[in-house]
Amino acid sequence: MPETLHIGIVGLGTVGVGTYKILTQNKELLSVRCGKKLEISAVSSRDASKDRGIDLSGVRWFKDPLEMATSPEIDIVVELIGGEDGIAYDLCKAALQNGKHFVTANKALIAKHGLELAKLAEGNSVALMFEAAVAGGIPILKSLREGLAANNYHRISGIINGTCNYILSAMKQDKRSFEDVLKEAQELGYAETPPDLDIDGIDTAHKLAIMSSIAYGIQVSFEDVHVEGIRNVSLDDVQYAHELGYVIKLLGIANKLGDKIEQRVHPCLVEKHVPIACIDGALNAIYVECDALGEALFTGAGAGEGPTASSVVADILDIASGRDSPAFGRKVDALEKGEFVDINHHEGEYYVRFNVQDKPGVLASITSALSAENIGFERVLQNAHEASNTAQIALTTHKISEAAIQKALQNIAQMDYVIESPHLIRIEDF
Amino acid sequence: MPETLHIGIVGLGTVGVGTYKILTQNKELLSVRCGKKLEISAVSSRDASKDRGIDLSGVRWFKDPLEMATSPEIDIVVELIGGEDGIAYDLCKAALQNGKHFVTANKALIAKHGLELAKLAEGNSVALMFEAAVAGGIPILKSLREGLAANNYHRISGIINGTCNYILSAMKQDKRSFEDVLKEAQELGYAETPPDLDIDGIDTAHKLAIMSSIAYGIQVSFEDVHVEGIRNVSLDDVQYAHELGYVIKLLGIANKLGDKIEQRVHPCLVEKHVPIACIDGALNAIYVECDALGEALFTGAGAGEGPTASSVVADILDIASGRDSPAFGRKVDALEKGEFVDINHHEGEYYVRFNVQDKPGVLASITSALSAENIGFERVLQNAHEASNTAQIALTTHKISEAAIQKALQNIAQMDYVIESPHLIRIEDF
Repeated sequence: MPETLHIGIVGLGTVGVGTYKILTQNKELLSVRCGKKLEISAVSSRDASKDRGIDLSGVRWFKDPLEMATSPEIDIVVELIGGEDGIAYDLCKAALQNGKHFVTANKALIAKHGLELAKLAEGNSVALMFEAAVAGGIPILKSLREGLAANNYHRISGIINGTCNYILSAMKQDKRSFEDVLKEAQELGYAETPPDLDIDGIDTAHKLAIMSSIAYGIQVSFEDVHVEGIRNVSLDDVQYAHELGYVIKLLGIANKLGDKIEQRVHPCLVEKHVPIACIDGALNAIYVECDALGEALFTGAGAGEGPTASSVVADILDIASGRDSPAFGRKVDALEKGEFVDINHHEGEYYVRFNVQDKPGVLASITSALSAENIGFERVLQNAHEASNTAQIALTTHKISEAAIQKALQNIAQMDYVIESPHLIRIEDF
Repeated sequence: MPETLHIGIVGLGTVGVGTYKILTQNKELLSVRCGKKLEISAVSSRDASKDRGIDLSGVRWFKDPLEMATSPEIDIVVELIGGEDGIAYDLCKAALQNGKHFVTANKALIAKHGLELAKLAEGNSVALMFEAAVAGGIPILKSLREGLAANNYHRISGIINGTCNYILSAMKQDKRSFEDVLKEAQELGYAETPPDLDIDGIDTAHKLAIMSSIAYGIQVSFEDVHVEGIRNVSLDDVQYAHELGYVIKLLGIANKLGDKIEQRVHPCLVEKHVPIACIDGALNAIYVECDALGEALFTGAGAGEGPTASSVVADILDIASGRDSPAFGRKVDALEKGEFVDINHHEGEYYVRFNVQDKPGVLASITSALSAENIGFERVLQNAHEASNTAQIALTTHKISEAAIQKALQNIAQMDYVIESPHLIRIEDF
């Protein structure tokens, strides 16, 4: 008779229930694949009385999840409650310290405490796994850590927040404002209330920091991600971008530049026809560029009950099969302290939109302020609004430094014809 | 000091040299990732004197590769010579029997002898790995075996032969004939001479049989793949397909239908805008549909020195890291004998092109022959060629059975107005 692994699930929200369902419905299949029996032996969640449509008879209910971490009945603790500190953090530490494997979908926890937790896992010879924390059901961490591990990674760029991609896609397709689409997304359950973690780019930055650590062998460092969300992307921007041959995507980008690493999350103008520009709706996609393979694109569902639980259970199968990788792809002591490029040293092309009074000399003033910083431009669109006697000017620059464009924009912002602060979006080249 | 793993490479063609380069150029990185030193200790190839641009000093040269299989100096034998029998097969058996891990990019070998070899590997507690055999640098076997292993797989559909995809893409983009593009591809080195294994679909079928075995837990069975290549795809077909809203792709498709499995390789009409239709040139792409995750698409370079070697080295890293999966995702004894659906029981939509004499009543005759088999159609295009007094009729059907359409076409083929056998291409729905 095959050995049985006893699993405890903490958190019975969407992903917790999804994990329960896969482990139950695909029970025999999973057992054949990993050669062990996988048994849900315990659960813990805030509300024991709630009907979740799953049969929990015969499963021990822990009021205090921390007790699960010390229970001799449990081999693997699966944490699906979320939050970077609090119970999730305490539970993880306790589980690892007590020699239990730990599987989580919690990107905030790993982005903030990943190094400490990986060390603890290593010291206790147990696995710390978090495939579900990045890009839901897409096995991108396993691919970076194992499948593509022959390579030096150059750039990793990802659409890794389905909510933002859904909003930006709907703005483009339906010509609707950010606020309008966000409200609808919240009503449909595609966006949280409040939506800040998603639309301010924090969630993307958590995931990016994790990928960057694995790809470059550095200590995970969320603090060193430059983060901008999509609140300031207007329908005007989406439409000017379209006219200029681009779409706007919120990307998480990790880029190796010599010995340094750039980690940035911000809206990007991406040429319409490159593969990652074509990923619409709530999908996720990660584009990997590396030395031997060249390029690969991984696309799939980045959130939701089934996709996220698929990765949680894949981690459990890895543990059951004895396929334990170090959490960040190498021993903790071999993870280097990354040296990061400040966003002010970024170099690239830029899109800028100005909202100005429509009077003679304005365009000349703007272009000469840009020229003063040696900024050349690619294309200029001007759009007058006669009734209000205002105009919008949208332009794209050649490749320049962030410092130069920021300085030029500061100078222009002080001009009396400027109605609102100039609006900048970086162009990402693929 | 970390343990050293001694690697022997048999075959120093494109992929062999690529493997050598990665193991040499990324040596330190690989060692940090897997915690062991990876050393190329021996090579074997037909021509010892050829300059391959790599430094082989200090590396033992085996004249007879089979001696490598018994050499106590070698831990991992890497076979990159190809061929389903002959040296590759003998070498694999000898290496596994002598307790050496075996890594290969040889799809023909695995598609034909995979079951026997996996059993041998299992019995000798060594790894048999072949990520590079399918889709070059894309880690699709690892994903099916591990990353997505929580799922029941429904359909796996792949563009897994870069040569065919290059030819079909060029026919579409440049409006050139099959023969013309093939000749150019051979001159550029994108297609082999003779090109049969690629363009007759055999290579795709080898790869499909391997994916199907892992996905469905069945004994690999190349013989049970229905195989048609792209020789009969004409520029006319490509252009009619375009007019009807489709592109033509050579797909390998494995599909679970109840308890049975459909394995087929043939040209397919695919709606223009679905993701897999947009993969052009020599790229590979695999679209996976499964129960928990839903859908995922993996895209990347499917052939060439770097990409294929990337997967070879990933397998070596798995071995070095102690992450050994069973070759086909479960123990050999747990692999079931698949039950396969014969192509005559296929059901789907069809595209058919008729080349006929242009005279009254022909279209009526064709449509009534189709109606006699209860075949309804979606769209009909007719194109008269006045000079020759001939016409082409292209049509798409509703969902029907293969038996019905084949019977109708046999009847139509006997009509006196038919100039050449009716030409059928299956439509694949995504």
